[in-house]
Amino acid sequence: MTKVSVEGLDLFFKAKSVAIYGASITPNSVGQAIIQNFIKPQYEGKVYAVNPKYKQVLGVKCYPSMQEVPEPVDMVVVAVPARITPRVFEDIATNGAKAAIVVSGGFSEVGPRGAELENEVVDIAMKHKIRIIGPNCVGVIDTHSHVDTFFLPEYRCGRPKPSNIANISLVSQSGAFAAAVADWTSELGLGISKIVSLGNKCDVDDDDLLQYLGDDPTTQVICYYTEGYDRLKGRTFFETAQKVAQNKPILVVKSGRGKRARAAASSHTGSLAGSDCVADAAYKQSGIIRADNFEQMFDMAKALSMQPPAKGDRVLMVTNGGGLGVMTADALEELNLAVTPPSPELEAMYQERLPKFCAVHNPIDVVGDSNATRYDIVFKEAIKSDEYDIFVVGMLLQTPSLGMDVTNVIANHQRQSGKPFVVVSMGGGFTTKAGEIMQLMGVPTYATGEKAALAAWALAKYGETKYGQEFNKTIRSDES
Amino acid sequence: MTKVSVEGLDLFFKAKSVAIYGASITPNSVGQAIIQNFIKPQYEGKVYAVNPKYKQVLGVKCYPSMQEVPEPVDMVVVAVPARITPRVFEDIATNGAKAAIVVSGGFSEVGPRGAELENEVVDIAMKHKIRIIGPNCVGVIDTHSHVDTFFLPEYRCGRPKPSNIANISLVSQSGAFAAAVADWTSELGLGISKIVSLGNKCDVDDDDLLQYLGDDPTTQVICYYTEGYDRLKGRTFFETAQKVAQNKPILVVKSGRGKRARAAASSHTGSLAGSDCVADAAYKQSGIIRADNFEQMFDMAKALSMQPPAKGDRVLMVTNGGGLGVMTADALEELNLAVTPPSPELEAMYQERLPKFCAVHNPIDVVGDSNATRYDIVFKEAIKSDEYDIFVVGMLLQTPSLGMDVTNVIANHQRQSGKPFVVVSMGGGFTTKAGEIMQLMGVPTYATGEKAALAAWALAKYGETKYGQEFNKTIRSDES
Repeated sequence: MTKVSVEGLDLFFKAKSVAIYGASITPNSVGQAIIQNFIKPQYEGKVYAVNPKYKQVLGVKCYPSMQEVPEPVDMVVVAVPARITPRVFEDIATNGAKAAIVVSGGFSEVGPRGAELENEVVDIAMKHKIRIIGPNCVGVIDTHSHVDTFFLPEYRCGRPKPSNIANISLVSQSGAFAAAVADWTSELGLGISKIVSLGNKCDVDDDDLLQYLGDDPTTQVICYYTEGYDRLKGRTFFETAQKVAQNKPILVVKSGRGKRARAAASSHTGSLAGSDCVADAAYKQSGIIRADNFEQMFDMAKALSMQPPAKGDRVLMVTNGGGLGVMTADALEELNLAVTPPSPELEAMYQERLPKFCAVHNPIDVVGDSNATRYDIVFKEAIKSDEYDIFVVGMLLQTPSLGMDVTNVIANHQRQSGKPFVVVSMGGGFTTKAGEIMQLMGVPTYATGEKAALAAWALAKYGETKYGQEFNKTIRSDES
Repeated sequence: MTKVSVEGLDLFFKAKSVAIYGASITPNSVGQAIIQNFIKPQYEGKVYAVNPKYKQVLGVKCYPSMQEVPEPVDMVVVAVPARITPRVFEDIATNGAKAAIVVSGGFSEVGPRGAELENEVVDIAMKHKIRIIGPNCVGVIDTHSHVDTFFLPEYRCGRPKPSNIANISLVSQSGAFAAAVADWTSELGLGISKIVSLGNKCDVDDDDLLQYLGDDPTTQVICYYTEGYDRLKGRTFFETAQKVAQNKPILVVKSGRGKRARAAASSHTGSLAGSDCVADAAYKQSGIIRADNFEQMFDMAKALSMQPPAKGDRVLMVTNGGGLGVMTADALEELNLAVTPPSPELEAMYQERLPKFCAVHNPIDVVGDSNATRYDIVFKEAIKSDEYDIFVVGMLLQTPSLGMDVTNVIANHQRQSGKPFVVVSMGGGFTTKAGEIMQLMGVPTYATGEKAALAAWALAKYGETKYGQEFNKTIRSDES
C-alpha cells in the first residue's frame, strides 16, 4: 500500500480526542481497561465511548456508532471482535477519524480467514486514509500526552515516566513484551517517552515509527524488539535507519536466532523470521546496535540517553576495589575497548599526587580506604592529559571512607569535560540509593562491571557512527 | 607447609570465644568495627579485646596482651600494623589459640619486605599450629554462628541471611568483592551460609575451604571468586573439586582473562594469574561450573540451591507471552539445551485439553488471557509423559487473568514431580513481589529469559556431574 505521510502518526501520540470503540461496563474487560486509562485526570483530551449496548460507560456518554459522535476524533481505539472490524471501519470513516489502533486479535496471526479480514480492514482504511496500528497489539503509551491504550491495570502493569534528562522510546512487535517493558521500566529510573506495540503491522510498521521517532524531540534513544523482517519492508527500514542513526542511537533486540525459536516466532506473530545473519549484517551496515536481550538493550540505552557518545575507545578505569577493577577490565577488553596504560608523564603525575600504595596503571586502584579526593586527582589529571575518551568508575560504597561527595566529584568532572562517564557500584541498600542519586546527577550507574563495560562499549560504538570513524583501528601502545 | 587438619577450620566459623587484637576506641577504625560486630546480641560467644593502650573498648574489658587473656580463645582477629604482627603471633601462641584471621595489609601484596614479614608470621604460626586466614582480607561471615569480622558498618554493607531451603557459601580472593557480595546478597532473598575473604592465602587456601565446605551441612552450593592459582596448590584444588562436585555444585568466577586485567590482578593480590585456558580446562575436568561474572554465578547458584539437578537436558518451555517464549527458547538453544517438541501423543493431548488458539509445540504458548488452569494442564500431561527433564515457566503477570494461584500450581507440580522448575517473570512492582513469593515456595524466579535459561543450563550441567553422563549426546528428534 502507498504510505500516507508520517506526520499522520502524531494523531496516535498526541490525540486530543479519542473514541473507544467497544468501551464496556464489564469489569476487567479490554473495553473497560482502555476507557479507564483515558478518564484518568492526567489525560487532558476528550473521550468518547462507542458501543450500541450502552448509554454510558464509567460516567462517559456512550454513542451507538461513530456516526453519532459529534466531532471527528483524532484517534479511535478499536476493541471489538475481529469479524465485525470491517463494518466498524466503515463507521469510523463516516466520522472522519484518520488514526485507529486495533487491539483485537483474530487476524492474520490466526490463519487465512483472519488474514482475509485483515486485508478487508486495510482496504477500507486505505480508501479513507485512516492509518492503523495493529491489529493484535496493546497499542501505545505516550508518557507526555498520557495517551495509553495498554489494557492492563496499573496495579499489575506499572507505567513508565519521562525524565528531564533524556528519554527512550521502544517499538515492540510483541504486545506482552511491550507491557512487561512498560512495567519493568516503571521502576528502573529510566526516562521513557513512548512504547508502541505494533502487532501484525497491517499498516504502520517499524519504518514509519523509525522516521517518526527520528524526528520526535522527546525521544533521544530508539529501541526495537522484533522477531523478523518482511523482505521488502526490511530494506526500507535499514535505509531509514542509516539516516536516523546519524542523529539518534538505534538499538534492537531480535529474537528467533535458534531453530525452535524461529518456529515459535512464526506462530507467534506470523512473521517470517528469515536468516538471522542477514539481519545482523544489515544492523552493522546501518549503524543499529544489536543487543542480545532486553536487559542489555536498556543498560546501553540508559548510557546513550544520559551521556554523550565517546570520541574514541580509550577507556580509563578507576576503582577503590582491586577485584572490581580486574573484572571490569576483563569485560572492557573482551569488548575490544582500549584499556591503555597512562603515558609516562601521566603516570609520574599520579605517582606524585596519589598515595604510593595506589596502583597507577590502568585500572587505577585508589584502594579500599580511598576518599573522594583520590578520584578527583585521577579525573583531573586524566582529563587534562586528554589520553582517555571514556571513564569507567568503580565506586564500592561498603567502606565508609568513601563519602557521598564522590558522586559530586564524578558528576562535575563529567559535566566540565563533556566526556562520557559510567559508574559501577555493586551492593545492597545504601549502594542502590547512591546509584539512584548518581543517575539523578546524570551519570548512568550499574551493579556489575560487565554492565558498565557494555555501557562504555555502546558509547564508543555509537561514537563511531556519530563521528564516522572506526575507533578500533586505534593503535594501542601495549598491543603485543 | 604441611597442612594441619581441615577440622581446625571449625574454629574460624564456630568460634565460641574470640579475641580482637587491636580492638580500638577510635570511631570508624578497623579495630573498632570488628569488635562492634562481636558485641551484637546475635553473637553468643565470649569476646576479649586486646590492646595495651586501653583498659576497656566499647564496654569490653581490654587486655594488654593475649598472655593476660584468662582462657585459650577459639579464634583471634588480628588488626594491627604489619610490622608488629610477628610479635603479636608470639603472644597469641602463649594463649594457646589455634586460629587467627589477619585482616591487616602490608604483606606480600606490597612487595619483598612485606613478603618477608608474611613468611615470618607463617613460621611462627606453623610452629605453634595456629591456622591463619589472610593476611590482607576482611575475613569471615558465618550467618549461623554470627562470627563476622567484616570491618564494614552494616548501614553501608548489609549482611546476608541463611535460608531454610538451602544455602550458598562464597570464598573470595578479593576482600572488597566479598564485602560487595555480602551487601548485594543481603537484598536478593538468597540463603547464604558463609562468606570468606582469603586475601594473600598465607595458610588457609581455596583447597582447605573446599574440603571444609564440602563437608559443611549448612552449605549446599559452593562459590569461588579467584584471580588465579598457584601451580601446585591449583592441582590439589582441582583434585578435591572432583570429589566434592559429586555431592555439591561448585561454581567459580575467575577474572584476569585479558592482558591488562591479568596485570592488574597480579598487582592486586600478588597472584600469578597464569594461563586462563589451563584453568578453564581444569574446571571442565573437575566438574566446576564457570560463570562469566557474579550475576551469572548467583543466578546459577540460586537455581542449584533451590532445585534438584536435572536428569537430562530436555526442556519444556511454557509461557503466556509469545515473545518471551521465543527469546527464552533462543537462549536455551544457544546453551545447547534440547528444546524438543512434544511427542505426537502429548501434542494430541494438549490439542484436546487446551483452547485451540494455544501453540502446543515447544515453547507452549498458553497465550495472554491464560489462567493458572492452562499451566496446570501443561505440567500434568508433560510430567505424566516423562518427555521432559526441566520446566522453564514464563509467567507474565501484567495481565490480571493470570491469578496468583499460578504460583501454587508451579510449586505443587515441582514438589510432586521432583523435576527442576525455573520461572521467568519480567516486570515491575507486582511482578517482583510475586517472584519473591514464588521463591519462598522454593522455585527460583528470574527477570529475563536469558537468566532463566542459564539457570536451567546449570541444573542440567550439574546433573551431568551428579549422574555421571553427558546429556548433550541426547539424540534430538528435530535435529537437522
